[in-house]
Amino acid sequence: MITLDVALGERSYPIYIGVELLHRADLIRRHLAGNEVMVVSNDTVAPLYLERVMAALDGVRAEAVILPDGEEYKTLAQLDTIFTALLEQRCSRQVTILALGGGVIGDMAGFAAACYQRGVPFIQIPTTLLAQVDSSVGGKTAVNHPLGKNMIGAFYQPRCVIADTTVLDTLDARQLSAGIAEVIKYGLICDKELFAWLEKNMEALVARDRDALSYAIERSCRNKAEVVAADELEHGRRALLNLGHTFGHAIETGMGYGQWLHGEAVAAGMVMATDLSARLGWLGAEDVRRVEKLVARAQLPTRGPALSVDKMKALMAVDKKVQDGRIRLVLLKALGEAVVSDAFDPVLLDRTLAECQA
Amino acid sequence: MITLDVALGERSYPIYIGVELLHRADLIRRHLAGNEVMVVSNDTVAPLYLERVMAALDGVRAEAVILPDGEEYKTLAQLDTIFTALLEQRCSRQVTILALGGGVIGDMAGFAAACYQRGVPFIQIPTTLLAQVDSSVGGKTAVNHPLGKNMIGAFYQPRCVIADTTVLDTLDARQLSAGIAEVIKYGLICDKELFAWLEKNMEALVARDRDALSYAIERSCRNKAEVVAADELEHGRRALLNLGHTFGHAIETGMGYGQWLHGEAVAAGMVMATDLSARLGWLGAEDVRRVEKLVARAQLPTRGPALSVDKMKALMAVDKKVQDGRIRLVLLKALGEAVVSDAFDPVLLDRTLAECQA
Repeated sequence: MITLDVALGERSYPIYIGVELLHRADLIRRHLAGNEVMVVSNDTVAPLYLERVMAALDGVRAEAVILPDGEEYKTLAQLDTIFTALLEQRCSRQVTILALGGGVIGDMAGFAAACYQRGVPFIQIPTTLLAQVDSSVGGKTAVNHPLGKNMIGAFYQPRCVIADTTVLDTLDARQLSAGIAEVIKYGLICDKELFAWLEKNMEALVARDRDALSYAIERSCRNKAEVVAADELEHGRRALLNLGHTFGHAIETGMGYGQWLHGEAVAAGMVMATDLSARLGWLGAEDVRRVEKLVARAQLPTRGPALSVDKMKALMAVDKKVQDGRIRLVLLKALGEAVVSDAFDPVLLDRTLAECQA
Repeated sequence: MITLDVALGERSYPIYIGVELLHRADLIRRHLAGNEVMVVSNDTVAPLYLERVMAALDGVRAEAVILPDGEEYKTLAQLDTIFTALLEQRCSRQVTILALGGGVIGDMAGFAAACYQRGVPFIQIPTTLLAQVDSSVGGKTAVNHPLGKNMIGAFYQPRCVIADTTVLDTLDARQLSAGIAEVIKYGLICDKELFAWLEKNMEALVARDRDALSYAIERSCRNKAEVVAADELEHGRRALLNLGHTFGHAIETGMGYGQWLHGEAVAAGMVMATDLSARLGWLGAEDVRRVEKLVARAQLPTRGPALSVDKMKALMAVDKKVQDGRIRLVLLKALGEAVVSDAFDPVLLDRTLAECQA
């Protein structure tokens, strides 16, 4: 087991990465606030892993609330289901909320923890690659709104993150690829070595080679922990972690939540950001080809869906990075070096949007 | 105009108290984050004061969302109405949310500000006595759940509070009395002098004598600001501000939100807390009579509604102060000296609940 620290002063916490961690009662118990736990999971993950987690909680007053699986259920209505379960069980302010699932469950359970009785402790047990390398770390929680993704939420840090790599064995191939998208992201924004490693090892990663997965998860979490420690509330550098996300969120909202997986939309979005960076003269054609090729080898889409340029731009205009009415994007000065910029000719953005779709 | 400071380090802010402050554009403008404002108000207050506030915001991109008036609308569903308005207007992270209304509007607008895009600035313009003396100060925001009052929320401080005493002229008598309940509360928990002043000046206060109102508001805000500065997140002393509230929340939830005004339920709850304190031998019969008399002179109920003891206890068991399954109550060691305690014989609580109802 590897332990990484997210250094946030009083809110610091460990990320545990390793095999067979799910039944490690000691890991969970040392982070409980009291003797009450509410597990939040979904109907795909619960049948596989809930029993194991409940066994590790033997002797604790533990209940579970099971939500339907999918991004289309990351709503205020489902959040209310969590609150109702907590109140029906008369859970007190000493309850610890435990997220057992992928990014959707982590985001919703974390937001519920931030709001229930104005804040109770929570623990992340991510069960998808995407959640293990990205969404479970850093304290961003949210639900979607029909008019914009992740628009309602809180910055709220977990007590710990337990990333059991064994659970990735049961992850379907599409979800695995979606997680690899976020690994590629770290390579592109700040980690040239990781990008080079991915170019050598993509097939091993897709084949779930255990060592390759471990390396990708640890390296991604190190990158994420470092960025979050430097800028918890996204006043600056943290925004770089949104490479491909302004495009990606527009795709997810525009297509209807759940049609494109978040990682798939981010993959197409990263190609768009790379394409626009090349149009600005910051990258060469060879760089664009390298990114497209790596994305394709990860079994991810290199093109967005058929949404009109106007529709994409309207959806991008509700992005959280918008300032004074101007869309700000994460773009690439080089492979491994991202910047946030609004200094691009809108005509070039139109071209990117028109040409980077299927 | 008086300016009080709520001393919370980086989150410190001023409370402005005075006449004719609503049209003071300078007060509002100095606390705006950007050039966007969303006013949240209700259908009672907006017709009276929205135009004046909008005039003060001349030149700012200001929109308004008007909710139905009443505690029964302090729900996740109405919160979503605020989010929809913000997104339809494409409000960015630089938007300032401005609460124009009583406690319900302040709690909802504040919680919306805490969650929209994971947090945007907000300003409180309380228009009821209750909001001016209590709920607008201190950063507690929330919505109700059918199973428990204020169960979903956040600690989120405003940029400033603007208490214009002129607006109390249009407040209906029942609402005025509800606000006086919270003034009495400060007297009982920590301010013997205020309690004595109230015993001398209650009729002037009920008659809206301007000097009496000013004194009551300033003194209450000073008490509140001091307690909140010492214990922002309610790890200890801040819980004293909940005198009468565990009983009161049970009354509000049990009767259906909006049937009893919050201040009315708190008034009956304070008499219950006083009664139980006397049963514990902490207060004398004369103290109980003084409290009941003062509450009655404020035109407030001295008895709770007819709810069974079991129902009241079940509702009180979801209170946020519950620890290890035990109900903790704010009780009185003397008039002007409150404590939080679970060290009472449950039989005495039963007697209080049975005897302090209509």
